[in-house]
Parts: sequence; structure tokens; C-alpha cells
Amino acid sequence: MKFSPSLANLIDALRALPGVGPKSAQRMTLHLLERDREGALALATALETAVAKIGHCSRCRNFTELEICEICCDPRRDHKLICVLETPADVLAVEQSGSFRGLYFVLMGHLSPIDGIGPREIGLDAFQQRVLDEGISEVILATNPTVEGEATAYYLTDMLLPHGVRVSRIAHGVPLGGELEYVDGSTLAHAFSGRRLLQQEQ
Amino acid sequence: MKFSPSLANLIDALRALPGVGPKSAQRMTLHLLERDREGALALATALETAVAKIGHCSRCRNFTELEICEICCDPRRDHKLICVLETPADVLAVEQSGSFRGLYFVLMGHLSPIDGIGPREIGLDAFQQRVLDEGISEVILATNPTVEGEATAYYLTDMLLPHGVRVSRIAHGVPLGGELEYVDGSTLAHAFSGRRLLQQEQ
Repeated sequence: MKFSPSLANLIDALRALPGVGPKSAQRMTLHLLERDREGALALATALETAVAKIGHCSRCRNFTELEICEICCDPRRDHKLICVLETPADVLAVEQSGSFRGLYFVLMGHLSPIDGIGPREIGLDAFQQRVLDEGISEVILATNPTVEGEATAYYLTDMLLPHGVRVSRIAHGVPLGGELEYVDGSTLAHAFSGRRLLQQEQ
Repeated sequence: MKFSPSLANLIDALRALPGVGPKSAQRMTLHLLERDREGALALATALETAVAKIGHCSRCRNFTELEICEICCDPRRDHKLICVLETPADVLAVEQSGSFRGLYFVLMGHLSPIDGIGPREIGLDAFQQRVLDEGISEVILATNPTVEGEATAYYLTDMLLPHGVRVSRIAHGVPLGGELEYVDGSTLAHAFSGRRLLQQEQ
């Protein structure tokens, strides 16, 4: 059986969403048409508005509707501390943890020479300039602990240290609430090599 | 952290899709904005077109862009045989199995007095008229084997039998490839009560 063209077209278009295969797309389409045509129209409008309005902050490259995002403008944050992350989702995770009150720099990816993504593509040339110009006191590297993330962190370290910038990497180890038994080997190796000496309290 | 308004709005709008919670909606939003803005725009257009164009076939109530759908118009199908189903997704499933070459009638739901869905809401008055007017030879009830589906099938039987219409119900039992060990009790009960006597081949 062939679907009518605009139905087939919608099923196809829904597959642009991550994690949506042909069966889910079909279910979503039938659901929207049967029960939520208003929701479908609202979604269409939201998509168009978001694509039209949302760009990148000219300072941190995070998503924003403004020229400079709210975080970069916030005078209550520490403007001498920059945390480097791979994606806007990472910014959200850190913000939700409430553990950081400095500024961010979002790479929108990581170094990946095979895919043609070099330092310029992730904005590192402009970033270096900014760090030097603004006298940043510390750059915290929070790229993912993957091969590409580590390579990116290594490149940044190499780029900033010669200029006397203080650079740090977030700690990797056993997650809180994680049971040692279920933690993978490389995490455990990180946990051991990154161990800290405990001191007797004074 | 607050999202920028059009980003928050898109995350919210995506939740109209079945099976999409706040976390998936956030992931979808960031994915579309980071990597597939074209796909996002195409999806917006597809949604608008589908909602604008797709209505119900005036004969079988299935989704179509035409006044009467392709199946109802198809002269190669048996126009004296009607299969009654609950949703357009059910039509798809039957069509994909290739096991039926008659016409359909899609209830777009089932009888559910609690939700105010009576015979008129699922089009049964018009259906009865059509069955009698067109001299339909057999009505096959393929509503779901749920309480509401069974009640709907029962209502249809009760409505059509007095007029001398031949009415049948699809068989329920152990699915092919299903192992008896894992089949639920009520399916097994159906399978036993619906057993057929085997005859020696002539």
C-alpha cells in the first residue's frame, strides 16, 4: 500500500529527528493526524522560529537569540574563568549541576582531522586571542573523555601553556553512586592514576 | 539555566510527539539546530502540508488527500467485502500482510461510552446504511482483541445480523512463530476455544 504523498512526506521528514526510525515516524504521523493537529502546527511554527532566530553567541559560540548570550553578559559570573566544552548540551549539564560560575566556550564539536574538523573549525584561533586579550586566570578543559575529546584537550593545553595561561582538566574517576564492581576498566585506571593523598585533619 | 525562548518553545512543541519526553525533546532540538537545520525546515513544511491536505475518505474514513481514497476507488478490489478496523495503522498492517483484497471501514477509535464515544462518533449509523444499500456480502470485524474492541465487534454484530448480513470475526490464537511457553493465558484460552477439527485428506 502506498501512503498518500503528504503523509509519506511527513513520515520521511520526521526521520530527521535523532532516534526516530521508520516505524516510530509512522506512529508519530498517525498520532499527530488523528489526535493532535494543533500540536503538529505548533511544532511546525516552533521549528521555523527556532531555525530563524537561534544563532551562536559571538563570544562563547553557545546557542542564543542574542548577539552575546545571557551567560556571557551576566555580571555576577566570574569573567576570568572559562570552561571549554564540546556541545550546548554539555553547557546545560554543567549549569544544571550548579558547580561552575564562570563563562563557557563551546567548541560545537571536537578536533577530528578525518572529518576535516581542525582547530579553526572549532574556533580555537579566536579563543586563544580572547584568552590572551582578556587576561583569563584559568581555562578549565571539560571536553569528553573520548579519544577525540582528549586530543582536543591536549591540543588546547599545548596551545595555551606556552603563553603562561593556567589550564586544568576536570577530574575523571568513579562516578558518585557508582559501584566499583560495575565501573569499566579505563575509568578505574583513571581513578587510580588520579588518586589524591589524604591528610590528617589539623 | 534558562533556555532562550524559541529554544524552550521548540523543546516543548516536540513533546507533542508520542514517546518523546523532556530529555529526548532537548536532544532532538540540539541535534536539529547543530546539525540539521534544513531537516528542521523540511519537517515544518511537511507538518503544515499534511495537516492542511490530509482529511478522511468519505467512504472508509481512512486518511487521504482525496475525497474518496485510492483503496475505495480501486476497481481490482472486491467491493462486496468490507473489513472493519480501528485505526489507519491497522489498515497499513493488513495491507502489508497482503491477506485481504476487499475494502475497509476505519472506525478511528472504538466504542467507549466513558469517553463519550458512541456508535455515531465512530460512524456506525452511516456504515449500516452503506452495508445495506450496497448489498455487501460479508463484513469482517478486525477490531482489536481488547475489551473496547470486543465490545465494538459485538455491537456491530448485533447491528448487522438482524438484516441478514454475513458477519465474521478474524481468528485469535497463538501467533505464528510464537512459542506456546511465552503466550499469555487469554490468548491460549482463545486458541483452545477456537480450535478446528482436522479432517483426513481425501
